[in-house]
Amino acid sequence: MARINDHYRKLAAGYLFPEIGRRVKAFADSHPDAKIIRLGIGDVTLPIVPAVVDAMRRAVEEIGTPEGMKGYAPDQGYEFLLDAILADDYAPRGITLARDELFVSDGSKQDSGNIQEIFGVECRIAVADPVYPVYVDTNVMAGRTGAVDARGYYGGILYLPATEANGFVPDPPAERVDVAYLCFPNNPTGAVATREQLARWVAWALANDAVLIFDAAYDAYIKDPALPRSIYEIDGATRCAIEMRSYSKRAGFTGVRCAYTVVPKAVTGVTASGERVPLHGLWARRMSTKFNGVPYVIQRAAEAVHSPDGKKQTGEQVAYYMENARRLREGLGAAGFRVFGGVHAPYIWMRVPDGMTSWSFFDALLDRANVVGTPGAGFGPAGEGYLRLSAFNSHANVDEALARIRRAFAR
Amino acid sequence: MARINDHYRKLAAGYLFPEIGRRVKAFADSHPDAKIIRLGIGDVTLPIVPAVVDAMRRAVEEIGTPEGMKGYAPDQGYEFLLDAILADDYAPRGITLARDELFVSDGSKQDSGNIQEIFGVECRIAVADPVYPVYVDTNVMAGRTGAVDARGYYGGILYLPATEANGFVPDPPAERVDVAYLCFPNNPTGAVATREQLARWVAWALANDAVLIFDAAYDAYIKDPALPRSIYEIDGATRCAIEMRSYSKRAGFTGVRCAYTVVPKAVTGVTASGERVPLHGLWARRMSTKFNGVPYVIQRAAEAVHSPDGKKQTGEQVAYYMENARRLREGLGAAGFRVFGGVHAPYIWMRVPDGMTSWSFFDALLDRANVVGTPGAGFGPAGEGYLRLSAFNSHANVDEALARIRRAFAR
Repeated sequence: MARINDHYRKLAAGYLFPEIGRRVKAFADSHPDAKIIRLGIGDVTLPIVPAVVDAMRRAVEEIGTPEGMKGYAPDQGYEFLLDAILADDYAPRGITLARDELFVSDGSKQDSGNIQEIFGVECRIAVADPVYPVYVDTNVMAGRTGAVDARGYYGGILYLPATEANGFVPDPPAERVDVAYLCFPNNPTGAVATREQLARWVAWALANDAVLIFDAAYDAYIKDPALPRSIYEIDGATRCAIEMRSYSKRAGFTGVRCAYTVVPKAVTGVTASGERVPLHGLWARRMSTKFNGVPYVIQRAAEAVHSPDGKKQTGEQVAYYMENARRLREGLGAAGFRVFGGVHAPYIWMRVPDGMTSWSFFDALLDRANVVGTPGAGFGPAGEGYLRLSAFNSHANVDEALARIRRAFAR
Repeated sequence: MARINDHYRKLAAGYLFPEIGRRVKAFADSHPDAKIIRLGIGDVTLPIVPAVVDAMRRAVEEIGTPEGMKGYAPDQGYEFLLDAILADDYAPRGITLARDELFVSDGSKQDSGNIQEIFGVECRIAVADPVYPVYVDTNVMAGRTGAVDARGYYGGILYLPATEANGFVPDPPAERVDVAYLCFPNNPTGAVATREQLARWVAWALANDAVLIFDAAYDAYIKDPALPRSIYEIDGATRCAIEMRSYSKRAGFTGVRCAYTVVPKAVTGVTASGERVPLHGLWARRMSTKFNGVPYVIQRAAEAVHSPDGKKQTGEQVAYYMENARRLREGLGAAGFRVFGGVHAPYIWMRVPDGMTSWSFFDALLDRANVVGTPGAGFGPAGEGYLRLSAFNSHANVDEALARIRRAFAR
């Protein structure tokens, strides 16, 4: 009699985006003529840029030849990609990492979901509230939490409210925490952390022997060059922080799949007997046992993102999406909504109208404007009263969505 | 103070293949002129076939256009691939599965490593000995075992010896087991299970309310059409078995990455309170939370494997490798070695010479013949005294390896 992993039964509801998908499909089925504009899931819309398409085409031809065939990729990624990352993402910011501190993967969702496996089940984790659901759900599935309460909080997790009062950037906690998840630019609030704010987190982690999981999946959207794009721009972070980055939003790779995680060798944890061990070896073991590398063709695609043409072309796409963010922010603001984010992030975090909840506004937006957002409550209890809009769409659709929202929710 | 997952510390040694890689690299560095022939890791060598290259090239062009751009893939895979699998791999064998019982993934290593997550930590697992190390290591990492003993056995796991006496196909156990891993054609022994043998396993699972994890990654190498290629050819298996299949060995995809897992909705487990629940929903939740789909380009590549040209071209590659297996089996047999496998599998399982161990023969083979094998002991204690040779290489290299082995180990 195979007992199931009962921790799965604690999960409050379906994963957020499938639930949204079900509601949108139900609406579309009953309103076949509605022209639905999707600003919900953070999925890119612009095509893969020519520099990347060219690189992929060459790689596809290559693996069709006896001399160019590639079998299993090196465990942590091809050197050509690792070196491109070090040279393009880290060296210009004065950050020195060893090549084997990088782990190329098929996504930051996977990495940020899997990283908890290397920690003990007794570790206490902290997350912002609202938060990207994967951090919480994967810890629930691993048995690192208690049951969910009526408000939607899982026992054992420390939730750090990200609110208008703190500019959606929580301070480090006073309570004991072993592992803290940070995501800046933030999904879902669109907030970004300053150097001083990140420095407080690093100082806290070092003082409290905690580990930071820094999810920088949206770093390409930071406009202000003075803002840190990597946690390793903060002194001491290579002793306490694991960082994740992705090509998904930077280069439109949500359907191409490439990301990487940095585990510096100086970041440590402690065994039951008190021995201090580098987390690097644990993650290396995890990946060599449960992963088999990113396709060669895809690693060549990622390498091309770092080429001069690739940087220029993907930079133009990011700018295009950020123009959408500007229109949404300003247009919704002019229509009387309170809006946040959208300056250094492709997400707008808007207050729902008084008297509505996140989900009732989600439903009303779908019904009255045929626009799909993401209900803030889906990201955690403190997300109640907000809705996330994504900038990943065409200018025309964003303008049309704005016009419909203004008409439907005129105040 | 972040406690690590102490279960990782139970792992007996590095994952097998990195250890082999280290030894081969050390030998190559100290013998720069040696022409090493690699018959160790089961990695393919023939180029990706034209039908697949063409499909990938078209898909790459497509995602570079506004109308062809693809974002996140559907959670369980594109319908075009799911339908191709059902039509090509299952319908011809009289097997009916629902489309949403299939989960497309980036590898059977990943799936066979991750599947244990949906089971309770108290589940008792059974594996063959020798065995593909991923089944055991991932259960160790999850805390489902005790410590390793001096022979290399982890406490709590039931090991089923696969020996010359039982033709390397163990019978179902008399003891209680909740989850049993089966792999046929077998890695590492090259053995294949008959219909009668699989029927005994299915009957045992149904009678004992156990779940079978059936890894069919090598099914393309089965020559005899009377042998089952899917566990679902056995009546009742859709009520007790999860099946994994891969394009890695069938179409040379070790560096392309595509596989799939079947979780029929009738396969169930039991909660702590005794409620019976389908495993399908648990796996769906695991995948939607921790995975983000296989790249569109790669799913198009896999689809092309099922096309008439793709089947013909990949079939020729399988036949090419199987000719290698025949030469190895017959050549080593003629040289006085006891050899197994290699008829319905790309692996030869050979007895090492008297007085040697798996690892001492591995080192001697590398040193005296410059041939890389895989020491049987790396697959479990009952693999001691054997070495695995893979058929994934050129005819010329196989012939050269055979000649060198004959010279080096003449008896």
